[in-house]
Amino acid sequence: MRARDLAVEFPTVTLDSPALDAAKLLAEQDLPGLIIVDDDRRPLSILPGTQVLRLAVPPYCQDDPALARVVDEAHADLFLRRLGDKTVRECLPEQPRELPVADMKATVLELAALMARTRSPLTAVVDGEGRLAGAVTLQSLMDHVLEL
Amino acid sequence: MRARDLAVEFPTVTLDSPALDAAKLLAEQDLPGLIIVDDDRRPLSILPGTQVLRLAVPPYCQDDPALARVVDEAHADLFLRRLGDKTVRECLPEQPRELPVADMKATVLELAALMARTRSPLTAVVDGEGRLAGAVTLQSLMDHVLEL
Repeated sequence: MRARDLAVEFPTVTLDSPALDAAKLLAEQDLPGLIIVDDDRRPLSILPGTQVLRLAVPPYCQDDPALARVVDEAHADLFLRRLGDKTVRECLPEQPRELPVADMKATVLELAALMARTRSPLTAVVDGEGRLAGAVTLQSLMDHVLEL
Repeated sequence: MRARDLAVEFPTVTLDSPALDAAKLLAEQDLPGLIIVDDDRRPLSILPGTQVLRLAVPPYCQDDPALARVVDEAHADLFLRRLGDKTVRECLPEQPRELPVADMKATVLELAALMARTRSPLTAVVDGEGRLAGAVTLQSLMDHVLEL
């Protein structure tokens, strides 16, 4: 089995999408992460769910647990409002070194190694022009290897 | 809302659980990760799904995409068999510096910051004795903050 056989259609967002809509898409469709594409549908970034959540966590709380604790319960519940009208572009963290993007011929083992290495439960699969052809989730990969 | 209100019962594995059973548990119950507990139900490790997958990826493939590519398709499909009869203990990678473990009073913002920082879509919640009281998933956290 290769990436082209496992890849399924997957919702995408762009840099101009509202960050709050992106967070809602993740939650409502129960996605393991989001794929951000450019106008040619080339993947610009793949954000695992934890990093979509990170978009909304104030920077001063991200690295210091004690600072997250000083925000009272009522305000803590509302932290997502911080996204306001910001776009994905305005919230996007620095790019990691390696994106979980595979070509159509990647084997199951390559996909697994890529997900493990990039800690992403989602891999974008691109065609020969680097355009998004679909995605493979950790769940679908596990289902495939366990049914053999 | 606090961790104690959001935490739900969550399946656990031990260091002596067969690694293959742990992988099956993840896939069959569609879990975002696994909680490994000791005999007193204290969390020893929390493995995000990608790191459960990693248990089965041969070390020589983990860091070098080119080496994963040399394994032919038929063998790549079967990489999970490498787990054989190994236990979780035998496969477990080095411990990360910080585990996604929160106390009962952690706020939603603390949970979000912890998940973002540890890149774990799953946080264990422990009682005053450090014993597992339940877990909060990224999905349930997102559902909570989006319905407000």
